Amino acid sequence: MREVTLESLEDITIGSTILGAGGGGDPYVGKLLARQAIIDHGPVRLADLTDLADDDQVCFVAGMGAPSVLVEKLPRTSEPVRAVRVLEDKLRISFTHIAPAEAGGLNAVVPFAAAALGIPVLDADGMGRAFPSLELVTPTLYGGSCTPMSMIDEHGNELIITSKTNAWAETIGRAAAVASGCHTMMALYPMTGAQAKRWLIPGVLTLAEKLGALLRTTRANHGDPVRAIMESQRGVLLFEGRVTAVQRATERGWTVGTATITGSGAFGGEMTLHFQNEHLAALRDGIVVATVPDLIMVLSHDSGEPVPAEEIRYGYRVAVLGLPCDDRWRTPAGLAVAGPRAFGYDMDFVPVEQSRAMERSSV
Amino acid sequence: MREVTLESLEDITIGSTILGAGGGGDPYVGKLLARQAIIDHGPVRLADLTDLADDDQVCFVAGMGAPSVLVEKLPRTSEPVRAVRVLEDKLRISFTHIAPAEAGGLNAVVPFAAAALGIPVLDADGMGRAFPSLELVTPTLYGGSCTPMSMIDEHGNELIITSKTNAWAETIGRAAAVASGCHTMMALYPMTGAQAKRWLIPGVLTLAEKLGALLRTTRANHGDPVRAIMESQRGVLLFEGRVTAVQRATERGWTVGTATITGSGAFGGEMTLHFQNEHLAALRDGIVVATVPDLIMVLSHDSGEPVPAEEIRYGYRVAVLGLPCDDRWRTPAGLAVAGPRAFGYDMDFVPVEQSRAMERSSV
Repeated sequence: MREVTLESLEDITIGSTILGAGGGGDPYVGKLLARQAIIDHGPVRLADLTDLADDDQVCFVAGMGAPSVLVEKLPRTSEPVRAVRVLEDKLRISFTHIAPAEAGGLNAVVPFAAAALGIPVLDADGMGRAFPSLELVTPTLYGGSCTPMSMIDEHGNELIITSKTNAWAETIGRAAAVASGCHTMMALYPMTGAQAKRWLIPGVLTLAEKLGALLRTTRANHGDPVRAIMESQRGVLLFEGRVTAVQRATERGWTVGTATITGSGAFGGEMTLHFQNEHLAALRDGIVVATVPDLIMVLSHDSGEPVPAEEIRYGYRVAVLGLPCDDRWRTPAGLAVAGPRAFGYDMDFVPVEQSRAMERSSV
Repeated sequence: MREVTLESLEDITIGSTILGAGGGGDPYVGKLLARQAIIDHGPVRLADLTDLADDDQVCFVAGMGAPSVLVEKLPRTSEPVRAVRVLEDKLRISFTHIAPAEAGGLNAVVPFAAAALGIPVLDADGMGRAFPSLELVTPTLYGGSCTPMSMIDEHGNELIITSKTNAWAETIGRAAAVASGCHTMMALYPMTGAQAKRWLIPGVLTLAEKLGALLRTTRANHGDPVRAIMESQRGVLLFEGRVTAVQRATERGWTVGTATITGSGAFGGEMTLHFQNEHLAALRDGIVVATVPDLIMVLSHDSGEPVPAEEIRYGYRVAVLGLPCDDRWRTPAGLAVAGPRAFGYDMDFVPVEQSRAMERSSV
């Protein structure tokens, strides 16, 4: 078990935004939240999955809402704390650990905002990336239940949902979140230590910290941050170019749209990115080159800074990286809930590695 | 304390539908629910407000959803029971009495569906009529809180809301109800016996039973049921005629629209009825003759049967009665939450008695 300090928090925030694949909330908001909590309550202990006892009690803490709204209205550190307390009261238990639901600028570090609870944060999550809906976590693949879950909105309203399926929790929770202003904090997926060890994806915060530090040091050394990130993760460079068109709307509480990138450097033609909070599909000249559940990362071409789906703008010069997702998402069960068709895209899953193979064969 | 049997239930159901002023859910659905519960668990004791001890624990039990959907999907008696149990678990108390939130075909008798709880039903409600949203009850006028409240939907999903205001409970609860299919059962407005005695409107079920019996006996004696009801309640006959146009939609979980009635008998011209679950405003040739919170009752001209807003149809021959609401609704505070402007109508409240005065002066 090690401690997360203000310094490591900076790297974790940037790194988890890279892993967030365009979603997971604004890194600035997440960092502010977590910083304030650590300043007020001291460093947070980080636990590994292997540290868990079977009878430990774990839950995810996460924000739900439209990222574009979360940027406008800053959450308070008291909201995630209250979400955990409300769920403890419902279940008549005390949680021993809290975990991030996903890697993402906001949601990877929201658990640190619960520093006032005085319990460790788990270095593990339920996605290994970010996803736009709350049933899309590895516990769902094992039959784990999202509920009872608690939800606190910015007005102080409190909700406890106990649903028949995780999809119902998403439907009802999303409706309530939209009704109360697209800005909520939740505690959800209560699980035992034994379940967490089996269900969760290990190491997300350590990986995020490593990526963040790599970005920071490469820039300090005037290196090529995009290339550094790609090589450290065995990622695939899918495209480079300038954003020439963006369509974006807030629908059903999500940031939904497309971005068109016109190629530059070694890349000719156009790339079209489809996003629903996260970047979910990338087409090069009409050919699908990457889809969810693999990670599609959009990075600022020069600085390597990740560009969230709600921030991507006309004129940005970007690199698009692909990274293989956790193997569990590539199973038939994983693709059924998190493949491109689950998001309404009429296309098959294409592993990002195929683009690397094509790259090589064309050299 | 007296017992409510299957026989008295028939009269209560019809009478509360008359008092429901077009809303409060389908009487047939309500009666089936309550019948089944009484058949399974025996007669239900009916308590007066004066029977309450100060430290008794009371809550409303009610359905929320679009009446047009509740007609299609029959609720189960287990749902109101579970709603009460979930709220008891949240509050760590046991309720001693349950009360109807409103007079209305469904919601006046839903508490009887909780007969399995073995506790008495209060002969008192929070409206003295029906209203389309859950903050519109007399406890709101006294600062009483709607929450914690529980909500069970037809899929078995369970919700507990603790809101900052009663309007927020309506907003969030309605959004959740719409998301899960417009068909829910709730336990809400937990209050002590002392509060119930001060806050609630007494005698609604006895009044409903009296109206139902009056309708039944008048019809058996080949009398004029509309006139009998009007005279027994000092009501005002606002209009008579045939429905010549209906516009109706299900919006935000409500049955919303207008009906046009072309006059007959002593009545010339046209009446336009505006409804949002309940009949909320009546205009005669463009002049407002009755508005919420007074009761606007539409009765079948010959049978005296109440016609709910979701059932009113082209060709129906109807009489429109007006009845003064409980005095508390006519205070500035009452009109602020339940007057016509609160429902988005650009008109002032017109007491139904004015139409009687006009009737007389024109004779």
